[in-house]
Amino acid sequence: MPVETLKWENGRLCYIDQTQLPTILVEHVTADYRVVAEAIRRLEIRGAPAIGIAAAFGVVLGMQELLTASGGNPIELGEQIITELESTRPTAVNLFWALERMRTVLRSHRENNKSIIDTLLAEALAIWEEDREICRALGRNGAELIRDGDTILTHCNAGALATADYGTALGVIYSAAKQGKNIHVYVDETRPLLQGARLTAWELMQEKIDVTLICDNMAASLMQQGKIDAIFVGADRIAQNGDTANKIGTYNLAVLANYHRIPMNIVAPLSTVDVDITDGSAIPVEERHAEEVTKIRNHRIAPAGVKVYNPAFDVTPHSLITSIVTEKGIVRPPYREKLIKIKNKS
Amino acid sequence: MPVETLKWENGRLCYIDQTQLPTILVEHVTADYRVVAEAIRRLEIRGAPAIGIAAAFGVVLGMQELLTASGGNPIELGEQIITELESTRPTAVNLFWALERMRTVLRSHRENNKSIIDTLLAEALAIWEEDREICRALGRNGAELIRDGDTILTHCNAGALATADYGTALGVIYSAAKQGKNIHVYVDETRPLLQGARLTAWELMQEKIDVTLICDNMAASLMQQGKIDAIFVGADRIAQNGDTANKIGTYNLAVLANYHRIPMNIVAPLSTVDVDITDGSAIPVEERHAEEVTKIRNHRIAPAGVKVYNPAFDVTPHSLITSIVTEKGIVRPPYREKLIKIKNKS
Repeated sequence: MPVETLKWENGRLCYIDQTQLPTILVEHVTADYRVVAEAIRRLEIRGAPAIGIAAAFGVVLGMQELLTASGGNPIELGEQIITELESTRPTAVNLFWALERMRTVLRSHRENNKSIIDTLLAEALAIWEEDREICRALGRNGAELIRDGDTILTHCNAGALATADYGTALGVIYSAAKQGKNIHVYVDETRPLLQGARLTAWELMQEKIDVTLICDNMAASLMQQGKIDAIFVGADRIAQNGDTANKIGTYNLAVLANYHRIPMNIVAPLSTVDVDITDGSAIPVEERHAEEVTKIRNHRIAPAGVKVYNPAFDVTPHSLITSIVTEKGIVRPPYREKLIKIKNKS
Repeated sequence: MPVETLKWENGRLCYIDQTQLPTILVEHVTADYRVVAEAIRRLEIRGAPAIGIAAAFGVVLGMQELLTASGGNPIELGEQIITELESTRPTAVNLFWALERMRTVLRSHRENNKSIIDTLLAEALAIWEEDREICRALGRNGAELIRDGDTILTHCNAGALATADYGTALGVIYSAAKQGKNIHVYVDETRPLLQGARLTAWELMQEKIDVTLICDNMAASLMQQGKIDAIFVGADRIAQNGDTANKIGTYNLAVLANYHRIPMNIVAPLSTVDVDITDGSAIPVEERHAEEVTKIRNHRIAPAGVKVYNPAFDVTPHSLITSIVTEKGIVRPPYREKLIKIKNKS
């Protein structure tokens, strides 16, 4: 059983506060959609699939509260809640995708107040349940790319903490391990917020996967020494042509993988594919606060007042991506028509 | 006047404790060569030229103490002190080069006890003074490679804190700025020990150079956006063929620079060129303690017991290096015979 980063219990959302890991495992319980929005903004809840699911439950929480209190127009209230939740993070498309599903349910509603909440909850639970199934399918599909004895490099956290189940890139690793393949994982610590060190290393240790932590700038040296067989990472948004936005440092790995002729694999649900954009240049890249870089756990590590550039994501061009693992199969270049086709396949 | 990382005053060595920067500026004063050895091992004194100079003064301190106390054989005592200082760090060749100069002076000594200390001190002061002149020459030579308006990327700290004067790679930047060139510098924070964030950003701000701090994994994204015109870094050891050991992450930058067609420049005194080795495979790479990665300022950032790989250096093959700036001029590929020839030039 993987770590459960999100739970729905008695009309409230329970979530692991990922900013506190690995030193303490804190679970918050809330009935307030504003708390959910702030948790997404502050990265207490993070990972493209997880923020989509949390936002969907956020809509349910918001409607439970506002509709009961005000008795206002449910469509208008719902739109207001959805708009607020959409403003939390700009890059991951799963957030907008999940909220769009909630919006569609909301707009098509023609019943009384009680049942709109039930209908929205059913949709949120469906998104959640689908993500579980998708994680399992991603794991099965991607595990084909891992041979017995392989050493895998991963970046950031694309695991159970980022999804409703075993994760995307880590789901592939868990799946290969379950097939009895002997694998070793190196994980980049992933500055500035150290999701690799804090979350991925912790998750893999929980699952008894052999893991070694490195700093981001050490990956090249490992590749030079022939120690990396393949790279698996998640994604926050994939354009029609396969250009992929993911955690800052992913593009770095893709250039290194290309130079060392190592497969660079993206693992993501098809909800991450944004068919509305033709290439990566249209993906907005979130820039975050300087203090994420200049302070670690409130301890200053750089001179006061230093200028900082802190993009949360980068965009890897499709030409550097060996394969995109989806729940409906592995897609290989050229991506453009294949991604749209596989996404539309029933 | 650059920051003075080392000073010789009244028969004692004063040094800035670089592990405390940038939060506090602490200067230690010692007459104990074991304290110097430990300061080098603990990276309180760091930077290839600076550790060579500090070790040379360490020999003087050791002789002042042991020869006065024991009255033993000066050559034997000196050899013992030198061996102890040589054991502090394995990769930077300047340490061995400076100690070899001290050993030569020691072995050729034929006078009384008083004068051997004076002779050794004169040699240490000569090494120190030469490094000052070398820094100025490196700066002059390298500044030719910088155009007005350029944006430079640097890694780790190859500045005043690493040398007896303005530094190697940063010396080039200071020199270009003094020529009136308008330049901007991005600096990698340089995990795990954050020399870029703590030392280089601090140094550049002291000198009023326009500097922006990034995490190591953000450099690729800047290059992709066309924001980097050239890379300048120092070196810890250069083989005959130009293969260069430098702070972990340098090889990463070299691969990125090659992909993005950005000049990758090494700036180092010729004492860094190790003519005894034909290529980089013979350079020993120091691996350091896991806690440098898992803790920052004693705060745990990774799960207890996680395995860590923590090499302090990597080796960049000569094929990825655009130029090696030395005090006697800029060397361009192919390096092998040119490096030996320029080193032997009087």
